[in-house]
Amino acid sequence: MTADDPHPPLPKLAVIAREAGVSVATVSKALNGRADVSAQTRRLVAEVLERRGYPRQRLKPARGSMVDVMLQGLESPYALAILGGVEDAAWRLGVDLVVSAVVGRTKNGQPPPAWLDRLGARDSAGVLLVRTSPTATQRAWLSDHGIPAVIVDPRRKPPPGLPVVAAGNLAGARAATEHLIGLGHERIAIVTGRPGVPCAVERLTGYRQAMAAAGLPVDPRWEVCGYFQRDSAATATHALLTGLPEPPTAVFACSDSMAVGVYQALGEHGWRVPDDVSVIGFDDSWAADHVTPALTTVRQPWPELGAAALSALLSGEPPARTELPTALVVRASAAPVSQASTR
Amino acid sequence: MTADDPHPPLPKLAVIAREAGVSVATVSKALNGRADVSAQTRRLVAEVLERRGYPRQRLKPARGSMVDVMLQGLESPYALAILGGVEDAAWRLGVDLVVSAVVGRTKNGQPPPAWLDRLGARDSAGVLLVRTSPTATQRAWLSDHGIPAVIVDPRRKPPPGLPVVAAGNLAGARAATEHLIGLGHERIAIVTGRPGVPCAVERLTGYRQAMAAAGLPVDPRWEVCGYFQRDSAATATHALLTGLPEPPTAVFACSDSMAVGVYQALGEHGWRVPDDVSVIGFDDSWAADHVTPALTTVRQPWPELGAAALSALLSGEPPARTELPTALVVRASAAPVSQASTR
Repeated sequence: MTADDPHPPLPKLAVIAREAGVSVATVSKALNGRADVSAQTRRLVAEVLERRGYPRQRLKPARGSMVDVMLQGLESPYALAILGGVEDAAWRLGVDLVVSAVVGRTKNGQPPPAWLDRLGARDSAGVLLVRTSPTATQRAWLSDHGIPAVIVDPRRKPPPGLPVVAAGNLAGARAATEHLIGLGHERIAIVTGRPGVPCAVERLTGYRQAMAAAGLPVDPRWEVCGYFQRDSAATATHALLTGLPEPPTAVFACSDSMAVGVYQALGEHGWRVPDDVSVIGFDDSWAADHVTPALTTVRQPWPELGAAALSALLSGEPPARTELPTALVVRASAAPVSQASTR
Repeated sequence: MTADDPHPPLPKLAVIAREAGVSVATVSKALNGRADVSAQTRRLVAEVLERRGYPRQRLKPARGSMVDVMLQGLESPYALAILGGVEDAAWRLGVDLVVSAVVGRTKNGQPPPAWLDRLGARDSAGVLLVRTSPTATQRAWLSDHGIPAVIVDPRRKPPPGLPVVAAGNLAGARAATEHLIGLGHERIAIVTGRPGVPCAVERLTGYRQAMAAAGLPVDPRWEVCGYFQRDSAATATHALLTGLPEPPTAVFACSDSMAVGVYQALGEHGWRVPDDVSVIGFDDSWAADHVTPALTTVRQPWPELGAAALSALLSGEPPARTELPTALVVRASAAPVSQASTR
């Protein structure tokens, strides 16, 4: 034991085996991440080690073990990007991914009841929930079976006790707004996502913080709701352009899809991007680089979220919240405010 | 046995059990799709039934069994859409999906060697290969282990003996070209995909067939290669617009991504879509409905391809080739040829 290592030396295998009620050979296998040890036995061994002050994450994930990924849906390119990150990390760890989706199978957007029956039959090493969360019953079942779970990019307030991996939405929105302020814009509108969704709330907060920090007042009519939908964003933008004595010179759309809706509405009013109105999105989706003009936006670290979530899940001691930084991607849709529009 | 049923009655369980060398209880479980029967035993039972003229597909897939999905990559939204179709079908069948991807792991774009080690340890009921195909060694291994495989949307000539599920690329391309011809266009260019990729070849053939059927000659300079890349498509379009005495009045881009490149090049030349040049894409991707003007395109049946592939895989007797129809989706990018441009 060195000064850098606060943990006691590994207890003898025989001691662990006795306390866990398994054979020495089984303990050895569990410690070496062998696939032929059940998840339950691995947990027993881990518990003994934990009681003796040995950190859980030192136990290797079993090679050949399986992790379940339950996605809200498979329609979203973001879901794919997250899954890509999980898959890459899983491949390197030798862990197999069992993938399923909630899609329209339940009214509450939470995993369907049959899910746990299937999961239980397979000795899952853990569960990643992407944009969905387990019901109270499912949480209790997972807890009873000692199966860890991590929520990625939550769409609702995550239940207590479940670790979360998410993007730094607040800081990202703040950076986007500060970029517009740096270009001289003062009348900056925001098209927000669906109210109550954590990332939508965080982005709105980031926008408000940036405006306040720059000493810029926010007209409440500049905050319009686009529900994360292109068409709703277009409708909201029409209101911004027609309902105000001085329309905004810049719009921060809280998703790239909504930015496309903003583009549409501006086009219908004969306003050009960025000459008349600057636009910034959020996501850095495929669309951002394919619309004209190419969209300045905030890159979400999708694959990194997936990889971090798997790593947290298998660590044995996932932190309550892991937040990964976003990055502003400057393209062609935000420009210095024109003299005409500041009038 | 009725007149509609050409198969003999099911042999007695004891007979099947004796021939397969397993217990009566095991035969019963296999016939009822129970999860606690290994894939190998299920195959033994299926073989006995087959020898006795009983069709394989009558054997239910084991509930709780697993199917492997190996994707070329997870970056493409099409891969996601195919996976969505597989997932939905798998959920209904009670089959779990183990998802992995080739991505950059091998130079030949085929699954990495470690794949089969992991697959063999799990008793996989079958393998779907999405836009990738097994190496000769992997094919032999799968065959030796009696694990069926189906290729979905092949990116290269599929190896002999492996069933293929694909979209009707030829008919789709023909329909797109006929749509342009119906709008009065005669000088119709095509931006093709990567040479040698089956779907690229089929789409080019469909275009040529439609032109020939309408008695329209094709100037070889109208056939330019975009390699399924937006930027390459833009470059190819520049050549179309500047290198010909009479530029085409319509462009059929063999993917939506390439159609976006065509839009870009036209815009840079000051040509409007569809006023000056009509454009049709292929895919009906997310982009098609998000570019301006919205793209007329050929819808690929992605989820249906996934569902059909799983169904073929579990049927026990997959047809050598399953082709699903595409559909022309008319939006705003193709219009009647203008008098000015036909001059």
